[in-house]
Amino acid sequence: MIDLTGWIEGVRTQQPLVHHITNYVTVNDCANITLAIGASPIMADAAEEAAEIAAMASAVVLNIGTLNARTIPSMIEAGRCANRRGAPVILDPVGAGASRLRGETANRLLQAMHVDVLRGNISEIRFIAGLSAATKGVDAAEQDATASADAAAMARSLAARLGCVVAITGKQDVVSDGNRTILIDNGHPMLSRLTGTGCMCSSLVASCCGAHPDHLFEATVAGILTMGIAGEIAYEAAGERGNGSFRVALHDAVSRMDDLQLAERARYHEAD
Amino acid sequence: MIDLTGWIEGVRTQQPLVHHITNYVTVNDCANITLAIGASPIMADAAEEAAEIAAMASAVVLNIGTLNARTIPSMIEAGRCANRRGAPVILDPVGAGASRLRGETANRLLQAMHVDVLRGNISEIRFIAGLSAATKGVDAAEQDATASADAAAMARSLAARLGCVVAITGKQDVVSDGNRTILIDNGHPMLSRLTGTGCMCSSLVASCCGAHPDHLFEATVAGILTMGIAGEIAYEAAGERGNGSFRVALHDAVSRMDDLQLAERARYHEAD
Amino acid sequence: MIDLTGWIEGVRTQQPLVHHITNYVTVNDCANITLAIGASPIMADAAEEAAEIAAMASAVVLNIGTLNARTIPSMIEAGRCANRRGAPVILDPVGAGASRLRGETANRLLQAMHVDVLRGNISEIRFIAGLSAATKGVDAAEQDATASADAAAMARSLAARLGCVVAITGKQDVVSDGNRTILIDNGHPMLSRLTGTGCMCSSLVASCCGAHPDHLFEATVAGILTMGIAGEIAYEAAGERGNGSFRVALHDAVSRMDDLQLAERARYHEAD
Repeated sequence: MIDLTGWIEGVRTQQPLVHHITNYVTVNDCANITLAIGASPIMADAAEEAAEIAAMASAVVLNIGTLNARTIPSMIEAGRCANRRGAPVILDPVGAGASRLRGETANRLLQAMHVDVLRGNISEIRFIAGLSAATKGVDAAEQDATASADAAAMARSLAARLGCVVAITGKQDVVSDGNRTILIDNGHPMLSRLTGTGCMCSSLVASCCGAHPDHLFEATVAGILTMGIAGEIAYEAAGERGNGSFRVALHDAVSRMDDLQLAERARYHEAD
Repeated sequence: MIDLTGWIEGVRTQQPLVHHITNYVTVNDCANITLAIGASPIMADAAEEAAEIAAMASAVVLNIGTLNARTIPSMIEAGRCANRRGAPVILDPVGAGASRLRGETANRLLQAMHVDVLRGNISEIRFIAGLSAATKGVDAAEQDATASADAAAMARSLAARLGCVVAITGKQDVVSDGNRTILIDNGHPMLSRLTGTGCMCSSLVASCCGAHPDHLFEATVAGILTMGIAGEIAYEAAGERGNGSFRVALHDAVSRMDDLQLAERARYHEAD
Repeated sequence: MIDLTGWIEGVRTQQPLVHHITNYVTVNDCANITLAIGASPIMADAAEEAAEIAAMASAVVLNIGTLNARTIPSMIEAGRCANRRGAPVILDPVGAGASRLRGETANRLLQAMHVDVLRGNISEIRFIAGLSAATKGVDAAEQDATASADAAAMARSLAARLGCVVAITGKQDVVSDGNRTILIDNGHPMLSRLTGTGCMCSSLVASCCGAHPDHLFEATVAGILTMGIAGEIAYEAAGERGNGSFRVALHDAVSRMDDLQLAERARYHEAD
């Protein structure tokens, strides 16, 4: 299994700067969740400054929700700059498969740079793997979600092909680097009733990767565990009150997360 | 009167996809309120994907807050695509009358497509009706708001002229399809002390219309009742604590709304 | 010292319209905090309407977070229009020094118009003062923050040179108009663990300046005191629960702020 000691502590100690080029729907949540886990967010999407900002950052998140033509070159600049410096690049292919623009851009980014961690829902990752994906907007399609028996195999083979960590989040999360594949059972259904929990998960993964660039597989697992466990804690604290209270409690839980909680509540196992 | 059975249940069962092209101020609230009532939001404003996304959607919201030249063609594409497919288009003319750009764009959208539901405050709707409107930014001007005796007549005649449902929200809400006109007394003054309650109301209307495309008048009433009643519940739960708590409680209340609550708390009557 | 009677009451009575051209990360918080203190926000960044909207406004906020080329001319139009009308212009140079784009734009805005209040963190203000600044993204660099002994002298000389009010917020806040210099000790470290508290502070300053255009120094102090004191109240009410609860309590506290609270809790003194 994975030694979960030190992953959150490392973020809080190092406060890695995480450069985001992301959508305007959930950008505030991403900034706040990055601060909550102890990292430092900077959002900057202009081509004139993308590389310059990426050059200061410990990790770069590229998120293609509300994509538009202006920010695609910025994403490529930022990603390539991070590559040159050895800073991890996290790609969140929001809605890949929902439109040609998003599908083509996800693939273009994967060709233009080395992506270190690819995190999406099952429909998005199926699309990138070249499998037929039934998408329903930015949410995973039901027929994809229930076919999660195949998810581990797909993640493993895609990770091997791309030479990166692939993470599929959903009812059961899958993380694979092509060799090791972990299945995670933490989380709560309320997380899917809030916008941006996927985007925030990518920000948490980036925060952990920024603090632990030599252990991207474990850092990705730590980021996803943080989101799932925070979702459970938030539901226990406030979930019955409704979506607004759950959201507040989710931010509370991430801001109070530590390695001990992570180790005690983590429920995961290696795939066969 | 209106049979209020089944309006919310229909949204929660069908989970209609609601495509938004909207402003960056309140977009997160719109996404979360759409999820809270049980629908599924997707935000996408690039011209390259607007029609493609609209083609999947059960309803389209066009909101002209923080309008810019880039997204106007996207709005036209999305609206026309929805028209062809018979999916309802909801127009929220934020700040129409506050600038030529917004006024001309509101009118241009009304000419370029069939709008199914037009929802705004009294100043915005007066502007579109061609009446002189005193605007104060994006909020209704006081002299307009207090002249609400004429609001019902104006809504009815504008609805008849445009062949659509017209909804004016404020202290008293008015909904008319040109034949029937309903006045709604639910709501709470705290709703006007929070940004985006008008935009969120449009998202709720769109969610209801997306689930009930053959009953747009009743669906619009249901959406507006949901906002007003949630405002009352939120004030009872948390309003005295201040704006932050009221906002959380508002999202809670929408996420827990059901047809029974709606029927029990609705206060409305037909206009004379 | 400063007579703190009437500053908040004036905002709540006059409800000044505050035009923002600002970043998409914290724009919702800025709109809500403007409403919470009793002013009326309008966000509009298109060049086609920037001057027209500014012409209605009692104050204009120019905030260069997530700056892009499209909105720079809008900022100049809005600022110059406000200058012509005598409406105060508040510049928030987010991340100045973090990239050439932001640094050059901050200086370009200062040349293209008269800025009435310049509010930033110590790294941003050092950059504008032409001093070497160590920036860490959009947050103040530690070596800058601990050198705050020099902050008062720098604020005073920069204010004298620019002929405006300069406000540096941080552990200790500094406000100077070149003659008088005030040091403020209110606030709480949790404010730095939330995104947008600097931006919101600028919105509060603009709200106060919009209501009190003939007393910009005092209005700036009142706006900054409001943020600091609200931070203390929010921490007492909810800070231990975590970041989400603190944020809610912060908005609550601003919405309930009045002149009495301000006078009772204010801790400040004149610089030597």
